[in-house]
Amino acid sequence: MTETVSQVLGRWVSAATFDDLPPAAIATATRSMLDCWGVTLAALGQPITSVVDAYAGKDSTGTASLVGLGRRATPETAAFVNASVGHALDFDDVSHTQGGHPTVAVLPAAFAAAEAHGATGKDLLLAFCVGVEITTKIARGVNFVHYDKGWHPTATLGVFGAAAAVAKLVGMDAEQCATALGMATAMSSGLKSSFGTMAKPLQVGRAAQSGVQCANLVAAGATAKPSAFEEAQGFATVFNGVGNFDLAETTGHLGAPWDLDDPGIAIKLHPCCGGTHAAVDAAITLHDGLGRDERVARVDAYIHPRRFAHLDRPGPDNPLDAKFSLQHTVALALTRGEVRIDDFTPSAITDADVVATRSVVRGHPLPEDRLGPEHFAAEVHLTLADGATRQVRMERPRGRTQETALTDDDIRRKFTSCTRDVLGDADRDRFAGLVAGVAELSDVDELAGILRGDRHIQ
Amino acid sequence: MTETVSQVLGRWVSAATFDDLPPAAIATATRSMLDCWGVTLAALGQPITSVVDAYAGKDSTGTASLVGLGRRATPETAAFVNASVGHALDFDDVSHTQGGHPTVAVLPAAFAAAEAHGATGKDLLLAFCVGVEITTKIARGVNFVHYDKGWHPTATLGVFGAAAAVAKLVGMDAEQCATALGMATAMSSGLKSSFGTMAKPLQVGRAAQSGVQCANLVAAGATAKPSAFEEAQGFATVFNGVGNFDLAETTGHLGAPWDLDDPGIAIKLHPCCGGTHAAVDAAITLHDGLGRDERVARVDAYIHPRRFAHLDRPGPDNPLDAKFSLQHTVALALTRGEVRIDDFTPSAITDADVVATRSVVRGHPLPEDRLGPEHFAAEVHLTLADGATRQVRMERPRGRTQETALTDDDIRRKFTSCTRDVLGDADRDRFAGLVAGVAELSDVDELAGILRGDRHIQ
Repeated sequence: MTETVSQVLGRWVSAATFDDLPPAAIATATRSMLDCWGVTLAALGQPITSVVDAYAGKDSTGTASLVGLGRRATPETAAFVNASVGHALDFDDVSHTQGGHPTVAVLPAAFAAAEAHGATGKDLLLAFCVGVEITTKIARGVNFVHYDKGWHPTATLGVFGAAAAVAKLVGMDAEQCATALGMATAMSSGLKSSFGTMAKPLQVGRAAQSGVQCANLVAAGATAKPSAFEEAQGFATVFNGVGNFDLAETTGHLGAPWDLDDPGIAIKLHPCCGGTHAAVDAAITLHDGLGRDERVARVDAYIHPRRFAHLDRPGPDNPLDAKFSLQHTVALALTRGEVRIDDFTPSAITDADVVATRSVVRGHPLPEDRLGPEHFAAEVHLTLADGATRQVRMERPRGRTQETALTDDDIRRKFTSCTRDVLGDADRDRFAGLVAGVAELSDVDELAGILRGDRHIQ
Repeated sequence: MTETVSQVLGRWVSAATFDDLPPAAIATATRSMLDCWGVTLAALGQPITSVVDAYAGKDSTGTASLVGLGRRATPETAAFVNASVGHALDFDDVSHTQGGHPTVAVLPAAFAAAEAHGATGKDLLLAFCVGVEITTKIARGVNFVHYDKGWHPTATLGVFGAAAAVAKLVGMDAEQCATALGMATAMSSGLKSSFGTMAKPLQVGRAAQSGVQCANLVAAGATAKPSAFEEAQGFATVFNGVGNFDLAETTGHLGAPWDLDDPGIAIKLHPCCGGTHAAVDAAITLHDGLGRDERVARVDAYIHPRRFAHLDRPGPDNPLDAKFSLQHTVALALTRGEVRIDDFTPSAITDADVVATRSVVRGHPLPEDRLGPEHFAAEVHLTLADGATRQVRMERPRGRTQETALTDDDIRRKFTSCTRDVLGDADRDRFAGLVAGVAELSDVDELAGILRGDRHIQ
């Protein structure tokens, strides 16, 4: 008898072992974990953190840690809270297969389950990799129709990865894994219209929570339709429309290659709109080449006209505005050689040095003949006080593809920047070291303790 | 400035008062409440109850009662558990506007919030009516495209009613109510492919739970997009497709009339497939007219060919099969004058009297010229042992429309049948009396105590 989609996926999830993971996938996964926790810790001061903190209540009798809140809750609540906070800054990693953010729905679900079940670091790493693989391979079957229709794949597809990760972590058999994934079709939700409000990260939190819920229900004996992905009123047809999917793309490539390995995951280097990143990279290169006594008289920044339309903001007056300001982000990069989370506070936006540079930055749409083959290109042209000129063109932002992947140093610098206010140096080093060696951990308690951060916040 | 859909809905929810409720809506609501709790209590022996019982865990420190499980949980968990159990038998009330079951998502959410907030009976009744109105009026905007595409409106639209009911019950202002409804667009889920598995009631449970969650998040300060229903990547377009909705039908008829009043709610009288109901009603009429000594020699039952195709099951061999058997259900009605929950246990299916009658029941598709204008008609023709014949034609099942609404006695008999095994006579009478006078209750504690049933089950 032919297996259904959820049965193929469930069998694969159940059978996957740590030894199946290629070293490159493990390396990518480890980097994504550190990055996800970094951007989560960076968001503890965001308004949404107070919302989910209040929502979760003060009971701390659960088994799963709430990042930065100094207490525990149930695994479902922890997955919800940590994923919501993790996506708050929109600074978490990106999968081009998914058209969304793969780690932020999967890791909080897997980690909450790992705490509850006393899992090893290897268990966690395998569950995480399996979850990302399920999310991205389902994405291959439904994208980009799914994305273009207005679904928010970070949530609508993240729920599958979260369910798979938890099912794997608790050791479910093939049929249970299949049922958990079938159940997740019943709980998939999330719309792009939520963008610009807290509903965006909250629907991602809901996806992580639902993943845990699906696995818990199956553990308690629940059933779901084995043909829930492919039947006429099932996930693919109802979400995508008749014929607008190819589930052979989902089932035919599981782990071959692992999506974490190829095409890999893009980690965002700068805490501002992705459309500014190539220009920021160019400006950082120019900054690094400036002599101590050289003075910038004028800057001309060129980006794709489609992005220029919403990024041309010469005088941003609040942090969100500044994140979408070509002029502000290029000025930051030229002045400091980096763009950091705390460059988008109200006071940082009026910093004298940055404002002085910003005042000489002019934005332009790239002319048609300089757009480049990928349409990601940006150019920054400097004119120095002595009339000399320099210019840098980036074909694409750093980190966007595996060929231009960030270095471990880049990621570590980002983690440091993200956690400056909430982790002491010793905790930060210890945590980064634990994550780098996550496969050797006999349990995740020390990671959880630092993440929970009983000492900081509160 | 023009209000958005969620703003219109939120303003209406916030402004609604008990005095706005027409007596007919209150009467319908009260009947639906009793019926919903009856079918929930009837399902306590179903497999899904053990699933949600195990899922909820044994902690009982929450404020909201788990029906029949003798303990409490958080309002979110209680809404999930009670709605899941409430929909398990598919015996709960139906809205033709919604194309689904309106009460089972709204009442568990509203009741859990009522317990948590010490609400009065009037608060509960108003919140429930508002919730059903929001569910059904959104349905008017999106049906029946929404239904036909494969969404499960009991869940996908139930979440809005649940959110509205809780928002109303806790006294949110217009903006908060609007935000809770906008948030619910981000958490709407549920597919028809779940039918036939526990995922069907569980996705309804999740809708009730998400409704509570949306309101709780808004209470904690969360934001959502005011234009989440109507914008290009919002609820109506993404779920229904461009142009396949008319949101003026949602916003233009709020409370005018209340959907509970017109067209009203259909309460299912028989615990079997709705397609058998007109024939069962005809058979009950024939049963009631049979003399003590009259013996039935032959029965010919005619239903619409579309229904006959899946209801022609002369020898059902398990309870689910029997619920879809025209022959079994007509034989039950002729033998006993009623069809009850416990007629679908394995032993009841082999009951000698019923099997004897079933053996002489022949099913037929109604000929084209006897289908009737509504396509709900059924005929049952009896041939007695002495050769005499009798026949009854029903144009539609009882309860299907307001014109043929069930009597209070019908509903009370159903409630008795549903609760025979789990409530003592005194509790049953007391409970029915409390529900009939729900508007006079200063709190819902006694209702909750009987529902929780610390003495029965467990």
